[in-house]
Amino acid sequence: MILFQSDYTEGACPEIMERLLATNMEQTPGYSEDVHCMRAAELIQKACNAPDSKVHFLVGGTQTNMTVIGAALRPYQGVLSAETGHIHVHETGAVESLGYKVLALPAVDGKIQAEQIDEACTLHKNDASFEHMVQPKMVYLSQPTELGTLYTKKELEEIRTVCDKHELYLFIDGARLGYGLVAGGNDVDLEALAKLTDVFYIGGTKVGALFGEAVVIKHPALQKDFRYMIKQKGGMLAKGRLLGVQFETLFENGLYMEVSKHAIRLADKLREALIQKEYSFFVENTTNQIFPIMEDTKLEELKENFGFCYQTRIDENHSAVRFCTSWATKEENVDALIAAL
Amino acid sequence: MILFQSDYTEGACPEIMERLLATNMEQTPGYSEDVHCMRAAELIQKACNAPDSKVHFLVGGTQTNMTVIGAALRPYQGVLSAETGHIHVHETGAVESLGYKVLALPAVDGKIQAEQIDEACTLHKNDASFEHMVQPKMVYLSQPTELGTLYTKKELEEIRTVCDKHELYLFIDGARLGYGLVAGGNDVDLEALAKLTDVFYIGGTKVGALFGEAVVIKHPALQKDFRYMIKQKGGMLAKGRLLGVQFETLFENGLYMEVSKHAIRLADKLREALIQKEYSFFVENTTNQIFPIMEDTKLEELKENFGFCYQTRIDENHSAVRFCTSWATKEENVDALIAAL
Amino acid sequence: MILFQSDYTEGACPEIMERLLATNMEQTPGYSEDVHCMRAAELIQKACNAPDSKVHFLVGGTQTNMTVIGAALRPYQGVLSAETGHIHVHETGAVESLGYKVLALPAVDGKIQAEQIDEACTLHKNDASFEHMVQPKMVYLSQPTELGTLYTKKELEEIRTVCDKHELYLFIDGARLGYGLVAGGNDVDLEALAKLTDVFYIGGTKVGALFGEAVVIKHPALQKDFRYMIKQKGGMLAKGRLLGVQFETLFENGLYMEVSKHAIRLADKLREALIQKEYSFFVENTTNQIFPIMEDTKLEELKENFGFCYQTRIDENHSAVRFCTSWATKEENVDALIAAL
Amino acid sequence: MILFQSDYTEGACPEIMERLLATNMEQTPGYSEDVHCMRAAELIQKACNAPDSKVHFLVGGTQTNMTVIGAALRPYQGVLSAETGHIHVHETGAVESLGYKVLALPAVDGKIQAEQIDEACTLHKNDASFEHMVQPKMVYLSQPTELGTLYTKKELEEIRTVCDKHELYLFIDGARLGYGLVAGGNDVDLEALAKLTDVFYIGGTKVGALFGEAVVIKHPALQKDFRYMIKQKGGMLAKGRLLGVQFETLFENGLYMEVSKHAIRLADKLREALIQKEYSFFVENTTNQIFPIMEDTKLEELKENFGFCYQTRIDENHSAVRFCTSWATKEENVDALIAAL
Repeated sequence: MILFQSDYTEGACPEIMERLLATNMEQTPGYSEDVHCMRAAELIQKACNAPDSKVHFLVGGTQTNMTVIGAALRPYQGVLSAETGHIHVHETGAVESLGYKVLALPAVDGKIQAEQIDEACTLHKNDASFEHMVQPKMVYLSQPTELGTLYTKKELEEIRTVCDKHELYLFIDGARLGYGLVAGGNDVDLEALAKLTDVFYIGGTKVGALFGEAVVIKHPALQKDFRYMIKQKGGMLAKGRLLGVQFETLFENGLYMEVSKHAIRLADKLREALIQKEYSFFVENTTNQIFPIMEDTKLEELKENFGFCYQTRIDENHSAVRFCTSWATKEENVDALIAAL
Repeated sequence: MILFQSDYTEGACPEIMERLLATNMEQTPGYSEDVHCMRAAELIQKACNAPDSKVHFLVGGTQTNMTVIGAALRPYQGVLSAETGHIHVHETGAVESLGYKVLALPAVDGKIQAEQIDEACTLHKNDASFEHMVQPKMVYLSQPTELGTLYTKKELEEIRTVCDKHELYLFIDGARLGYGLVAGGNDVDLEALAKLTDVFYIGGTKVGALFGEAVVIKHPALQKDFRYMIKQKGGMLAKGRLLGVQFETLFENGLYMEVSKHAIRLADKLREALIQKEYSFFVENTTNQIFPIMEDTKLEELKENFGFCYQTRIDENHSAVRFCTSWATKEENVDALIAAL
Repeated sequence: MILFQSDYTEGACPEIMERLLATNMEQTPGYSEDVHCMRAAELIQKACNAPDSKVHFLVGGTQTNMTVIGAALRPYQGVLSAETGHIHVHETGAVESLGYKVLALPAVDGKIQAEQIDEACTLHKNDASFEHMVQPKMVYLSQPTELGTLYTKKELEEIRTVCDKHELYLFIDGARLGYGLVAGGNDVDLEALAKLTDVFYIGGTKVGALFGEAVVIKHPALQKDFRYMIKQKGGMLAKGRLLGVQFETLFENGLYMEVSKHAIRLADKLREALIQKEYSFFVENTTNQIFPIMEDTKLEELKENFGFCYQTRIDENHSAVRFCTSWATKEENVDALIAAL
Repeated sequence: MILFQSDYTEGACPEIMERLLATNMEQTPGYSEDVHCMRAAELIQKACNAPDSKVHFLVGGTQTNMTVIGAALRPYQGVLSAETGHIHVHETGAVESLGYKVLALPAVDGKIQAEQIDEACTLHKNDASFEHMVQPKMVYLSQPTELGTLYTKKELEEIRTVCDKHELYLFIDGARLGYGLVAGGNDVDLEALAKLTDVFYIGGTKVGALFGEAVVIKHPALQKDFRYMIKQKGGMLAKGRLLGVQFETLFENGLYMEVSKHAIRLADKLREALIQKEYSFFVENTTNQIFPIMEDTKLEELKENFGFCYQTRIDENHSAVRFCTSWATKEENVDALIAAL
C-alpha cells in the first residue's frame, strides 16, 4: 500500500533525524529557552528579513491557530475566515472553545478576497445593532489554502489595505507554506509575508520536520506575553529544543526550500500525467495537493494499492479525491500511481 | 413619534404592574425560591400539561439561550441553527463565548427543516475526520422565527424524529411565543411544544412582562443542576420573586394569551392595510412582526413620525423594514400608521 | 415570620415603584439607549464628580462582576481577591467560566491590604517560571466587604499606589455601597471611589431598587466596547429604561443616601442592643450586616419567628449568624427582634 | 555546566531514538490511528491489567491535564487539588481557561488526604447557597507529587472511597510516574492505579521519551468522545505514531521501569551524600527530586558549575533548592556534585 492521503505519513527528513541524534544528550534548559531555539529564531528572522519580529515554536497547527487567535482577540471579537478554512471546519471548534466566533465568508477555490472583508466590516459598522453582533477583528487566511491554491501578492496587498482600513489583524496559516513558496506561479515570498501580515507561521510538520510550526509575530500587541499564551493553551513543549533543532536544520542551508521543491516536482509530474489522461480537477492549483475528479469504479480499483483522501461527491458516478506529495514522497511511488491511473 | 420598531418599547401590562405593587413589601427568600415562583411554575406546568417538567425563570433571552445551551453541550459539541437564528447573528457570540460552535444551516423564511438536520448529522458521522469537526448535539429553533414565521406541528414532529435518530436535543426559543400561539394558522400549542422539545421557553419580555423568560425543561439530563448554570451565567435574579409574580399574573387567568391576541389583531389590521395598498413583503407571516418592502422615499417620509426597523436593501430604490405590534400597541397608533402609508 | 436574612427580601422603595408606574407606557428605544438611562448616567457622573467616566447599567452583581472582569483581562491574566471575596466563593465560578483565575489572598475581616498585593505581584515577576503562572492584572475589592467591613481612604490610596506600580486595574464591587457610604466611620465617598478606582459599581438591588447595578468606568481601556461585553454576557436588558428610571429616582434627590441611612440607623440600633446584651461578634463593622455569635439553643428559638443566615460554627455550642437590615426594614421588626434576644 | 534543574534537560533514551530512526520512513495514517499507537496501547493496558481501559497519547502534561479535566466536568463543576498542585500553580491557568475552577486544598508535603476531600464535599452539600458555589466533581492528585512525595496505597484507597461517596472522578497526574513506581517504599503499582482511579497518565516526557504522556481512561463516561477533546484542545499530533513508537519502546521490555530505576539509584546516592553532609531537607521523599536546604553562600558557589532550581527562602541565610536526576543523569555528574557539596 502506497499512501498519498496526506503530507504527514512519514517521520522527518534525514538531516533532521541526524541532528536530533547528534544533539540528543546535550543538556539544555526547557521550554524553548535554549540555544537551538534562539538560533532557529534568528535564522527565520533573517529569512523573512524581519529583525523586529518575534519567532516562537509550537508543536502543531491547530494549537498554533488557537494560540495566535486567542492572543489577538477580545471576547466579543471574531475572526473572518473562508468557509473552507481549517479553523472553521477541521479543528473541532478549537477557536470557539476559546470563546471566539469564526465569521465564515463564502470562498472561491478556498480563497476570500479583500472586497468581502471590506463588506463584512462595513456592514457591521453600519448596523444599528452592531453591539449585538460579533466585531470582526482578524482575518485568517491559509497559504496555500485547504484546496492548494495560492494568494497572489496583489491579493494579499489588497487584503492588507482593507485590514488597515478596519483595524484588523492579518494572520496567515502556513501549515504547508514551503509547498506554496516554491510552487509554480507563486510571487509571495517569506519577506512579503512578514511585511504584509501581523503574524503568520511556517509549517514544519508537513514540510520535513517530525513536528513543529514557527510563528513569526510582527505586530507588537501580539508579541506581548505570547509565551504565557503558549503555556496556557498547552503548547509549551518541555523539551523545546526539539523544535529549535528542527527549524535550525531546515533554515540554516535552505533545506526547507529544497524539500519543498522535491514535493512540488513530484506533484507537477502527477498533475501532468492526470492532465494527459484527461482527468478534470475539482480545483486547479500548483502546490502539493492534487484534486482530480475520478469515476467511482476507478477509485475502488486504486484503493487496493493506494491511499488517498475522499474529498466530495461530484455526480452519481464521480467523486473528487485528494492526492498529496511531500518532502518524503518517492518518485517510484508516483510512477506506480501514474501507471495505475 | 410613534414607535413600531420592536415589541419592547413599553413597560408591562397593567395587571403585572398592579401585582408588583401589591406584593412589593412582602418578605420572601431570594433567588426564585419563593411562593410566587413556585406557583408560577405550577401554572406553567399545567398550561403545558407537563407535570414532570422543571420550570425556571430568567431575565432575558440571550441569557436564557446561553444558559440552556451551556447546560446541554459537551465542549466539542455544537448547536444547529438557522443562519438567521438569534444565537448566530444577534447575541454578540454569547454561545461561542461559552466555547460552543453554532452550526449554521441555510434557512428559508427563517426556518430550517428536518432533512437539513438529518443531512448535517449524517455527513458528520460519515466523515473520516469526524473527530476533527464539531459534533452536532442540539437543534435550536425559534417559534416564531426571527422573521415572524411559524413551524407547523408536522414540521416539528419531523424534526423531533430526526433529533431522536441522531440523539440531538431540541430547544425552542420562544421569546415571542405568545404571538405565535395565537397567530392565524398556528397549530402548535404549549402542550405540543412540551411534548416535542427537550426544552423551550415562554417569552415574557416581549409579551406583557417587564422582563422574564420561563424555561420549561423536559429532558432529565438538562434538569439536573440547572440552577448552578443560571447562577454561573449571571442569570440568578436576587429578587427572583419579581419573575414569579409576573408569570403568575400572566398564567393564572389566561392573560398571556389575551395580550398576545391584542398584538395579533392589530398586526393583522396593519398587514391587511399594507396588502390593500399593494405593498409586497420581504417574508409573509401571521405574527406580530411585519416586513413590508417600501420605497426609500416613502421610508424617509414615515421616519419623521414613526419608528421602525431597517431590515435590508431590496433594490436601488426599495428596502424591507420591520413594524412590530405588541401587547401595548394602541389601535389609534396603528390607524395613524395606516393613514400615513 | 420576620426576615433579616438578607437585604433583598422586599421589592423596591415606593418612590421607585411610583416612577416605574408613571413611565410604564412611555415608548422608548431598548437596550439602555433611552433618555432615562442617559439622565441617570449624568446624575451618577455628577455624584461622583467624574464627567469623563462612562456609566452602564446591569441587572445583577454576579453579571456585573463577570462583565467587568471579562472586559479587563487577557486570557492569561487573573484577578486578585480576598479569599472571602464574592467572586471567589459565591458566584459558582462565573469568573473562571470566562477563563480567568481568581488569585485568592488571605483576608482579615474580609479585607486585603496593599502589601499583600505588592508581594503577590513581586513574587510573580521574580519567579523564573513566571510565564507558567497566571499574571495578576486586576484587584477586586468589595466596599463594604462580604463581612460588612469598610476600607478606609488611606487603605484604598495605598492599594491604588500598588496598582499603579504593577499596572493593575482596581475594581470595587459596591453591591451594598450605599450602606458603606453612610456607615459610621466611613471616609470614602463616591468621589474618592471614582478617583481611586478604574471601575466600580453602585449597587441598586440591595439598596432600594428592584434590581440594578450602575457601573462607573474610569479607565479608557475598559470603557471601549463595553456594551458588546454586556450583550455577550447576557446582561443587556431589553427594556433598559427600567434601570435608567430606577437610578434616576435614586440619584436625583439623594434618595440613595436616604434609604441607606434608614438601614444603618436600624442596624446601629440592633448592634447596640446586642452589645448591651453582651453578645460578642464574629466580625465588627458599622454597616448593615451584623454577625453576632449566639448559643445554638438561642438560635433554635429565634428561628421560629425570625429569618437569618447561618454563617459559621464557632464552638460546640455557639455559631455566628448574620442579620441584615435594609432600606425596607421596619423599625417594629427590629424592636421585635431585640425583644426576642 | 552540569544541569540538575529538571528531568527534561536531555532528549530521549537511545532505544527510543533508534526506534524513531528505524521507523522514520514507514508510511502510516496520522492522528494516532496507526499500528504503533495501537500496539503501545495494548502494552499499556496489559501492564496495568486493565483490558477495558482506553489509552490515548498526548504530547505534554499541561495539555493532558486540561484535556482530561475538560472531558470530565460540567461548566459549574470544579476539581479539588492540593494548593501546590501543578494545575493550580504552574499551568498559567489552563484549567480556568477552559472555564473550570481549581478548588485548592491545603497540602502537607504536596499531598491532600481523604478527610479533606470529604469535608469539602460535605460543606458544599450542606451549604444553603450550594448552587452559588462551584460543585466539586473531580480530585486531581500527582504521583509523585510536585514535592516528590508519594501517596500510599492505603491513602489512595481512602481517597477512592470518598470519591465514590461523593460521586467524584479521581484523576492522577503521573508526569513523573516512573520515578514513583520504582522509588523506595512505594506500594502503588500500575495495576493499583488503574484499579483505584478513573483516569491517570503515565509520563513519558520526563521518563525517557522525547515527549509524550499516555492517558489511561477507566471510566466509560470519560472514554466517550475523548478524541474530539484531544483535537479541540490542540493535542492531536499529526504524526501520532511518534507517540506510539516511543511508548511501544518503553513498554515492550520493561524499559520504562529500567530507566526510572537508574534515576532513582542516582537520586538515592545524592540524597545519601546530602544526609551524610548533614543537610536538612525542605521535604523528605524517595523519588528523583531532592529538596535540600542550603546556605545561600554555598548556593552561589554551586551555581558556577551546576544548574538547579530555586525553591523557596527558608531564612535569612538559607534557601531550599531542587536537584533532579533522570533517566539521562550521568553518574560522574552526580559524583561531581557530591564532591562540590
